[in-house]
Amino acid sequence: MKRGEIDTKKTHKNQTVVFKSKPAIIGSYSVAGKKEGEGPLGKTINQIFEDCLFGEKSHEMAEQKMFETAIRGAIKDAKLTPEQIDMMLAGDLLNQIISSSFAARSFDLMFVGIYGACSTMALSLAMGSSMVDGGFANRVVVAAGSHFATAERQYRYPLELGNQRPPVSQWTVTGCGATVLSGEADEKMPTLPRVTCATFGKVIDWGVRDVNNMGAAMAPAACATLVAHFRDTKRKPTDYDAIFTGDLGKMGEEILRDLMHDAGYDLGDNYTDCGRLVYSDDQNLYQGGSGCGCSAITLNGYIMKKLRAREYKRILFVATGALLSPVSGYQGNTIPAIAHGVVLESL
Amino acid sequence: MKRGEIDTKKTHKNQTVVFKSKPAIIGSYSVAGKKEGEGPLGKTINQIFEDCLFGEKSHEMAEQKMFETAIRGAIKDAKLTPEQIDMMLAGDLLNQIISSSFAARSFDLMFVGIYGACSTMALSLAMGSSMVDGGFANRVVVAAGSHFATAERQYRYPLELGNQRPPVSQWTVTGCGATVLSGEADEKMPTLPRVTCATFGKVIDWGVRDVNNMGAAMAPAACATLVAHFRDTKRKPTDYDAIFTGDLGKMGEEILRDLMHDAGYDLGDNYTDCGRLVYSDDQNLYQGGSGCGCSAITLNGYIMKKLRAREYKRILFVATGALLSPVSGYQGNTIPAIAHGVVLESL
Repeated sequence: MKRGEIDTKKTHKNQTVVFKSKPAIIGSYSVAGKKEGEGPLGKTINQIFEDCLFGEKSHEMAEQKMFETAIRGAIKDAKLTPEQIDMMLAGDLLNQIISSSFAARSFDLMFVGIYGACSTMALSLAMGSSMVDGGFANRVVVAAGSHFATAERQYRYPLELGNQRPPVSQWTVTGCGATVLSGEADEKMPTLPRVTCATFGKVIDWGVRDVNNMGAAMAPAACATLVAHFRDTKRKPTDYDAIFTGDLGKMGEEILRDLMHDAGYDLGDNYTDCGRLVYSDDQNLYQGGSGCGCSAITLNGYIMKKLRAREYKRILFVATGALLSPVSGYQGNTIPAIAHGVVLESL
Repeated sequence: MKRGEIDTKKTHKNQTVVFKSKPAIIGSYSVAGKKEGEGPLGKTINQIFEDCLFGEKSHEMAEQKMFETAIRGAIKDAKLTPEQIDMMLAGDLLNQIISSSFAARSFDLMFVGIYGACSTMALSLAMGSSMVDGGFANRVVVAAGSHFATAERQYRYPLELGNQRPPVSQWTVTGCGATVLSGEADEKMPTLPRVTCATFGKVIDWGVRDVNNMGAAMAPAACATLVAHFRDTKRKPTDYDAIFTGDLGKMGEEILRDLMHDAGYDLGDNYTDCGRLVYSDDQNLYQGGSGCGCSAITLNGYIMKKLRAREYKRILFVATGALLSPVSGYQGNTIPAIAHGVVLESL
């Protein structure tokens, strides 16, 4: 859809799938870097590493190690071994999703590579739940992550250049989150969070060209998916204890509130953005966090803890992705975006 | 799995999913460049464009246009309009799969980005069939493609450098194929090919480092998936009218025959590789074709025509992907590979 278009027609096509078996989240793990550990969510992250190389020779290898660590952590959290898992679905921001693919070498699992840019945590949860609910796999691990140094080098400039950052910019989260889904949850596990439905997004392009302003590029996609979700489910924002977007950042969050208001929905106080949550204002990171890891560590840390403690009964998690590449930008293209949503409930 | 390891244990985990509803292939389309049009499969390709820019300003934009063309063609072949399709699953070789994502802007469809390198046609068919069979979407379009000029520039050298090609190299196919799957096929459509099962692959790395020798890197992955498939289904190679691998090329095909022989299976005369089929020997392209487009145009051209004519009753289509990136190569990494298989039947 082009600029200004949000599908508010009553005849829109259903984008929401309901998972009848309600796949259970039986394991969850988050790993992140020093800066994230110093942020407001630091205590909810399972593992913090002080050295941004995570003991590896390159930042790319550190990112791969984060994936391995998060996946092993989530499987261990589920009190299982990798041999008891069937399938892995994962994605990241690096070209050819090498962090996910290379990490998959360490696991004897069917592997499905997913690319949704920063929407990957929600997309992999939605696709993983589909595989479980469809009866194609019993236990699935899904993962998403990013690393500040690898993302900056690939999408913008190598850190060694010491470029200034514009005020609309966000800071790519160094972190990875993994979740284990099971189709076998039974009455012994009454308190486990469940994935009850997912709303798949469409690609939206409103013509934003500024590669430093991801919030503005992605907010229309978040709006389109939220509107579709509320219409499909006949729910409203207050039907959720909390609504999270993935990494719109502070300004993107404000843009989304405005767009949703125009579409007839007031997101209210129970909505916030993972990019706003992950760093504190005194960390001076402008609009906040971004990257696949931003929503992945927030979900598999802060949000999961509240779901498990039943502080949240039902939340809506909408991760957003900007589908650009450096080449598409150099060739004068605008930035398409997408948002995928999943509903997690403590039944 | 590391060098030399193929999981031939009897206790291996099931990697094959059976699609009970047998999603029907209701539409199919292939588009390709001049060189592919001049090859042995030329007459089976729906649309050939003479100019490798396909009327666009860059090769990347040409690749995106191929996706749009193939997807519209497949939907038209299904006698439907894009409004009657629910979901699109697609992937390509370009960083951030921009060809697929940018093409998705033109369609009002839920979009799932898939990354399986050159295994994408099989992976998107397997995931698309899962979405249909799981009841999450009624009609799905899946697509995969590649372009010689964009792939060479990204993975190796820009064409302008005029580099020599080593004898083990393959030629990235300029082409795209799309398939429309439906969960609603009924008795009115008795002759439509169906997707009856899929075998999802694991990531295999036998330590190959030569980025010009993809066949050697991918053959072990193809072997692992074929062995898993035959064991899961209790079938043997002769239970298929034809078995195709995606783009191992001539030498890769020979390596696979040897590996399968060692694993106790004789692939025989009904096995061949799409990379061998797509170009003739007198086109002098060394090991043959490669790229997502290689298996995509072979499936959505040559293979589909034979399935529709019921010359093939049951075929096994195993597309292989090398999961490297230029960065992973520069950092001294080996080349992980994966293969996914789907069974197509004329019931």
